[in-house]
Amino acid sequence: MREIGIDALDDMARGAGILGTGGGGDPYVGKLLAREAIRRHGPVTVYDIDEVPADATVVPVSSMGAPTVLLEKLPGGTEELTALRALEAVLGRQATHIVPIEVGGVNSMIPIAAAAQAGLPLVDGDAMGRAFPEAQMVLPTLIGVRNTPMAVADDKGNTLVLDAVSNHWAERIARAACVQMGCQVSCADTVLRGDQLRDGLVPATLTLAEELGRAVRVARAEHADPVAAAVAVLGGVTLFSGKVVDVERRTTGGFARGRARLEGTGTLELDFQNEHLLARRDGAIVATTPDLICVLDTDSGEPVTTEAMRYGLRVTVVGAPCDPRWTTPAGLELAGPRYFGYDCDYLPLTAA
Amino acid sequence: MREIGIDALDDMARGAGILGTGGGGDPYVGKLLAREAIRRHGPVTVYDIDEVPADATVVPVSSMGAPTVLLEKLPGGTEELTALRALEAVLGRQATHIVPIEVGGVNSMIPIAAAAQAGLPLVDGDAMGRAFPEAQMVLPTLIGVRNTPMAVADDKGNTLVLDAVSNHWAERIARAACVQMGCQVSCADTVLRGDQLRDGLVPATLTLAEELGRAVRVARAEHADPVAAAVAVLGGVTLFSGKVVDVERRTTGGFARGRARLEGTGTLELDFQNEHLLARRDGAIVATTPDLICVLDTDSGEPVTTEAMRYGLRVTVVGAPCDPRWTTPAGLELAGPRYFGYDCDYLPLTAA
Repeated sequence: MREIGIDALDDMARGAGILGTGGGGDPYVGKLLAREAIRRHGPVTVYDIDEVPADATVVPVSSMGAPTVLLEKLPGGTEELTALRALEAVLGRQATHIVPIEVGGVNSMIPIAAAAQAGLPLVDGDAMGRAFPEAQMVLPTLIGVRNTPMAVADDKGNTLVLDAVSNHWAERIARAACVQMGCQVSCADTVLRGDQLRDGLVPATLTLAEELGRAVRVARAEHADPVAAAVAVLGGVTLFSGKVVDVERRTTGGFARGRARLEGTGTLELDFQNEHLLARRDGAIVATTPDLICVLDTDSGEPVTTEAMRYGLRVTVVGAPCDPRWTTPAGLELAGPRYFGYDCDYLPLTAA
Repeated sequence: MREIGIDALDDMARGAGILGTGGGGDPYVGKLLAREAIRRHGPVTVYDIDEVPADATVVPVSSMGAPTVLLEKLPGGTEELTALRALEAVLGRQATHIVPIEVGGVNSMIPIAAAAQAGLPLVDGDAMGRAFPEAQMVLPTLIGVRNTPMAVADDKGNTLVLDAVSNHWAERIARAACVQMGCQVSCADTVLRGDQLRDGLVPATLTLAEELGRAVRVARAEHADPVAAAVAVLGGVTLFSGKVVDVERRTTGGFARGRARLEGTGTLELDFQNEHLLARRDGAIVATTPDLICVLDTDSGEPVTTEAMRYGLRVTVVGAPCDPRWTTPAGLELAGPRYFGYDCDYLPLTAA
């Protein structure tokens, strides 16, 4: 058990930005919400997975939408709590703990804000160990945990509670509603009992995000290589360094989709749907989902989200291994390259 | 108080088809559901508006979607009850009466089936006095009654409960979910107290539908003019007789939209979004929403829905005055031609 105070947020948000693999939404906005909530309600208590009682009601609280929209349409800061309360009403019981559904991007920070507001402790872990674009792409799906009832709340005051026959159906219906609600909504869903956390979460990922962010900051302060520091913490490999020469981006179906092209020694192409899904070096695939494909500013080591990617940026692309449960057949069916329509198998990372 | 048995359904469905003004979904499918429900559970008791206690909980139960889809994707027959139960769960009380949200089309029959299944009485009336394409286009909106909580259920077992900040927002979000759910779902929404029925409903429209259907049938049996019989019951005017020469039809955004062209003495063009919205004779507008623009088979007097409209059909177009509350400024703002994007005012009907 420890506490997250305002001081931890900068490092944690930086690390979460890297773990967001280009997507997950810029954690900057979430950091502001978390900072304000902690300022108002005090630090948030964080428990390790092992410290959570078996009968706990652990509720992931998150933001759904296109990161491109989050840039312009900021959350009001109360929608998460509205979604949580709507979910509790249909559950007939109250949440005992909050947990991030994904550690990558804004959804590392939103649960901190929600936990502070609700006066609830947080669990150190998340249901992905990264960010993924769709709601069913969580470890709980792999162990048969439903993501409904799912509560969705928007900034205008609209809420809905969904009960779906599968986690895919919940994603499909919630996404369509999300688009109408302004492409940026808050969700509470995929409720876990305390005794499901070991199988349903990647442990200690908030701590990992903070370590990652700290390593980059410290390396920069010490005039060391911040990208190398990130690679070391991630246990990853450097895939490419170069300059962004082209970005094609469109917000469709509730997602930010597109492709970026980098030039350096050869070229690297990155395909994304919110998150980076595939990296091709000189036409050959070098990394695929569900591994993490992270883009960092070469000089500063700061994460570069897909919506911030622009011509001229000098970036380094880093591959990092995902949680091993994602590379099982069931994991790949849920979030592997073929799910996203690519005619290729998952390719384990190798050093460039 | 009276009972609706299987014998009443044919006439009532025919009349409801006419009152559906081209949309509302072919009542044939609903008639089969109502017939089966009555066969299984017995006749449905129907109360006049005046007979309903002031504290009654009157729940409209309906089908939402595109009539073109209803043709191919039949309701399972249990979704209405699922929606009703989901609504009751959030209301925290049970429905005492069922009522049609619209008398036009399939939604005259769906509530009969639901009432039989639920063992509840029906109220003789509806919230439109016709059919309209969107969920907020009901008299309850004009008196400040919310259409949420709204429960939506599909054939697959997905349900959602919506709480929206306005009746327009509920339509917008539910429609998007409806499209994902297969463009044909069941809804329970716009709950009325017994003492709101006088202002929130058009009275006795199930009886009107039955009379209208009977008048057409009797005229046909007596070799009289069935269209004239319908016009008499409707208090309407004959706008045009001719042959369908062109139909443009597309199912977009959860609606069946399009235009039909008729030739006779001159031409008549009909624009529709599920329902007929505008009739232009030789280029000049002769009838607009919210008045009823009904298309009848010239020989048989049977209603012709927009999805059944096809080249060569000989039809007569009848205009009938809507409930006077629709032609108030607030009514026209909700369902007048300008709402649908036409740059014209409502034009009261005149004899052709």
